[in-house]
Amino acid sequence: MNLSDLEFYQAQIEEGLNNYLPTTSAVPERLHEAMRYSVCGGGKRLRGILLLLSCEVADGHWQGALPAAAAIEMIHAYSLIHDDLPCMDDDELRRGKPTNHRVYGEATALLAGDALLTQAIITMLVQAPVGLEKAYHQALQELVQASGTEGMIGGQVLDLAAEGKSLKLHELKEIYRRKTGALITAALRMGGIIAGATSDVLEALTVYGEALGLAFQITDDLLDLEAETVVLGKTVGSDLKNEKATYPGMVGIDQARLFATEEINRACLALVPLAEKGKVLRHLAEAVLHRNK
Amino acid sequence: MNLSDLEFYQAQIEEGLNNYLPTTSAVPERLHEAMRYSVCGGGKRLRGILLLLSCEVADGHWQGALPAAAAIEMIHAYSLIHDDLPCMDDDELRRGKPTNHRVYGEATALLAGDALLTQAIITMLVQAPVGLEKAYHQALQELVQASGTEGMIGGQVLDLAAEGKSLKLHELKEIYRRKTGALITAALRMGGIIAGATSDVLEALTVYGEALGLAFQITDDLLDLEAETVVLGKTVGSDLKNEKATYPGMVGIDQARLFATEEINRACLALVPLAEKGKVLRHLAEAVLHRNK
Repeated sequence: MNLSDLEFYQAQIEEGLNNYLPTTSAVPERLHEAMRYSVCGGGKRLRGILLLLSCEVADGHWQGALPAAAAIEMIHAYSLIHDDLPCMDDDELRRGKPTNHRVYGEATALLAGDALLTQAIITMLVQAPVGLEKAYHQALQELVQASGTEGMIGGQVLDLAAEGKSLKLHELKEIYRRKTGALITAALRMGGIIAGATSDVLEALTVYGEALGLAFQITDDLLDLEAETVVLGKTVGSDLKNEKATYPGMVGIDQARLFATEEINRACLALVPLAEKGKVLRHLAEAVLHRNK
Repeated sequence: MNLSDLEFYQAQIEEGLNNYLPTTSAVPERLHEAMRYSVCGGGKRLRGILLLLSCEVADGHWQGALPAAAAIEMIHAYSLIHDDLPCMDDDELRRGKPTNHRVYGEATALLAGDALLTQAIITMLVQAPVGLEKAYHQALQELVQASGTEGMIGGQVLDLAAEGKSLKLHELKEIYRRKTGALITAALRMGGIIAGATSDVLEALTVYGEALGLAFQITDDLLDLEAETVVLGKTVGSDLKNEKATYPGMVGIDQARLFATEEINRACLALVPLAEKGKVLRHLAEAVLHRNK
């Protein structure tokens, strides 16, 4: 298996999302349109792919994990919609398109975010494949705990509170662990849980996820400084505008890149016990380091 | 049992919320404070009380339903926080206090709402009493489906879309069914499910919930016209300001009151098969009709 296979998984996730989201012909049509606008037809699907891959790495079938992969992408999309709102980062571009509230207005964007979070839970409960109900129940717990005040939302609040303040590096790392790392780690653990992974495999996936999550956020910082808007698909320089603390802002670009590389090494090291099976996750980690969007 | 017993249930729900919400000494403190600001120490707890009572009516113990009652109150509180935001109803008062965003700012209020929705799901999963895990799983499904695009959020979107437009009465009824009725009906059904109710009892609770939900929203309209701000605890006349369609606006105050009375009668009729056991729900329905806040 090599990295070109990821397009296959992306397409499956796209189809899953299409199946598990309310149709635009159902009332209220505009809400369903707004939900689909932000979640369908774009994005790297990193979290969904990690979930499917970790399921396969732990000897499960990706098909059984598809509803969970769609659910985690709904959670991610909801967080982006709310993050882009005027009262938050006030961003105009996301995935190369105008942000949700620029198209549908603030009220609908707010509710579309709420609805995507809710639909993610519904998907985990209603679409759990026969025989995997218990695993989905446990995976749902991982998902919501990683999304809540101990994870993603907590990280966003700490991130907002830190704007314009000077942070220590370990404080920034803690923000990243919650804001980005928690959901990425949850993706890995959910895939493992759905596959019925042993505790050793689950532990390897967890460490991999934590390291990858941190590396991913550092490369995000670097892209915000270096990339072109047209490639990145969201406004560059947004961190500077919002006076956000970032790794490159604190330690310089070269050192930040070094930190990211170290985390990717740590992620790959965690995969050693998985031998050949871990190969695809190793490739993916390297791709995260060298991504340009 | 009579209506004064409801204070007992209110106190239990208050204690449950206090136990199941993150403490204000945990990071991020300000987020946890904002969550507690809106959910603790106030409110009628109608949905939580209905959930506990329906559990008892169906021969369960209210203690087993307490985490679910707290969870539904978290969902209700999140919907109020988001509903009060400037991009929605832009309200300044709620339960006699400044609205969440007036105290904590829009960004924190938005995230406190997101966090309460997430915490409600966490509570349903983590706090389910031993032996009731399966019932909680089913009850959680009721809760999220009633909160999503088919229920509460869908109703809010239809409500926003209807502002300034002329509606037919059956369209307004459909908005109310989703916006308010779905969660109230879910409260009744969840309590029944947790008690292991028979399908007959569950059906009676469902019809009662649907009728009570509609009556509750109509009396809400009447209070918005008639009550004093100091008693109601939120700004009166808000519907007029926002050009919202309401029952009294469409059919007049007297006819609206008559419709509410009819729904309360329908709710009580549904309780007949429960005989003496349904008494407390009958009293509660009558109290909804005559409420002044």
